Amino acid sequence: MKINKNTKFLIIGLGLMGGSYARALTKKGYTVNAITKDQSSIDFAIENKIINYGTTAVEEELIKNTDVVIFALYPHVFTEWLEKYQHLFKPGTVLTDVTGVKTSVISQIDAIIRDDIEFIAAHPMAGREVYGVENSDDAIFKNANYIVVPTEKNSSESIALCKELGSILGFAKISELSPEKHDEMIAFLSQLTHCIAVCLMTCNQSDNMQDYTGDSFRDLTRIAQINEYMWSELFLMNKEPLLQMMRIFRDDFDKLTGYIEADDKQAIMDMMRISTERRKLFNK
Amino acid sequence: MKINKNTKFLIIGLGLMGGSYARALTKKGYTVNAITKDQSSIDFAIENKIINYGTTAVEEELIKNTDVVIFALYPHVFTEWLEKYQHLFKPGTVLTDVTGVKTSVISQIDAIIRDDIEFIAAHPMAGREVYGVENSDDAIFKNANYIVVPTEKNSSESIALCKELGSILGFAKISELSPEKHDEMIAFLSQLTHCIAVCLMTCNQSDNMQDYTGDSFRDLTRIAQINEYMWSELFLMNKEPLLQMMRIFRDDFDKLTGYIEADDKQAIMDMMRISTERRKLFNK
Repeated sequence: MKINKNTKFLIIGLGLMGGSYARALTKKGYTVNAITKDQSSIDFAIENKIINYGTTAVEEELIKNTDVVIFALYPHVFTEWLEKYQHLFKPGTVLTDVTGVKTSVISQIDAIIRDDIEFIAAHPMAGREVYGVENSDDAIFKNANYIVVPTEKNSSESIALCKELGSILGFAKISELSPEKHDEMIAFLSQLTHCIAVCLMTCNQSDNMQDYTGDSFRDLTRIAQINEYMWSELFLMNKEPLLQMMRIFRDDFDKLTGYIEADDKQAIMDMMRISTERRKLFNK
Repeated sequence: MKINKNTKFLIIGLGLMGGSYARALTKKGYTVNAITKDQSSIDFAIENKIINYGTTAVEEELIKNTDVVIFALYPHVFTEWLEKYQHLFKPGTVLTDVTGVKTSVISQIDAIIRDDIEFIAAHPMAGREVYGVENSDDAIFKNANYIVVPTEKNSSESIALCKELGSILGFAKISELSPEKHDEMIAFLSQLTHCIAVCLMTCNQSDNMQDYTGDSFRDLTRIAQINEYMWSELFLMNKEPLLQMMRIFRDDFDKLTGYIEADDKQAIMDMMRISTERRKLFNK
């Protein structure tokens, strides 16, 4: 299947991410429908012309008339939903997701999915520290990375479709990674950073620090406002790669601590020079 | 002394911070002169009307005709300069600085300073990851914190003058802290965050990570582009408070690591809830 002007999208889970997908796709002229748990999310989305149609029910007609489904649910809800309702999809339907970890999700989905529909995993590397369709905004995709995570079970057609979706959504860079490589990367780039931000917030609860802080502390802890249900689930689903990344970070942190204890200015400066050089790669 | 429209400011060290001070003061109509080591900095500042007059020489007339001096130098250069040239100031001159750590600087300055001039320490909590007067910008003071760090040797008049300076510069919040409390605070809010950013950059040098990253990694490592000369000096000048803050951070990081190893979802969520609640205090 290829995406064309008649392609019908169904978003399951109309929160911040589902809503942002809906906004981008609707703007481009596609038909976007949604199933979500709260009527208020649907009311908001209809009122703001973010979707064409939405329901809190699992409507057979709607599901059957869908070409591409985007699951924007918590990982365990995604698996449960698919198990219960996948018989309603027409053959050839393509499913994708927005889940932040991949190996375990893909293996769970692959274990249960019908042979005549296809799941192609993707990770939009974008987000905000707020929730709900009310806060959705497709501008978060601009300048952001989109990672397609295929397995050998995926057809080249679906991989291409998924990449096209990333491009329609407006992502700046679309890449492909294996599930294992993706999870390693995410353990480092996203999960470890969230661990650090949380610990920075919890380890020192002195009063009035907000009156003395500069922007660096604010920047390092922006993501410390965190959805504990989603992130604890993602951490534990990606436990081994995350623990590995926590270890390598701690090794360097201990190394730097040792240099400071020993007044080894040269060694501190050497680390800073590597850091400065390498950080330039990440400037947008 | 009080600041009035005739107050003459002398900035010693016309880099990013000195230049930003100069811009703000000049905009408000004060006379701002500068002594700095490179003629090119002076040329730029004159051309862009950032200062009234500048020189690379230590000019007796200029120094004698100054009311308020702002030292924007590396800590060790500040002490050396004062030792060598303080005889040139007229009695009653008020000196202030922008140094990022205070206890050791203040004790060094207090040990040598003339009795008839006064040093009142201050820390503008603002900066950029670039250097030089060419990159100076007084907009960095907007929404930022300014900390006055008096000792019992300071007159209430000079403390008031220093606070007024912060307000003229455009800082959003002006506070007062003892040198010890300041250094503890800065060890946590600024130095620890720079340590973390550097280690995040050095601990994993895999290829192509920039193609997969989201904004959280960028935010946590923005300050990893770091001036190694200045920051290694600041770290070692504030060694004990910094090591103490590195330890408390590591304790919580180890605690979180343990919860993940043990699949203790409840404990992970508890930390995240505290983190989320506390981070709200730091929203601008």
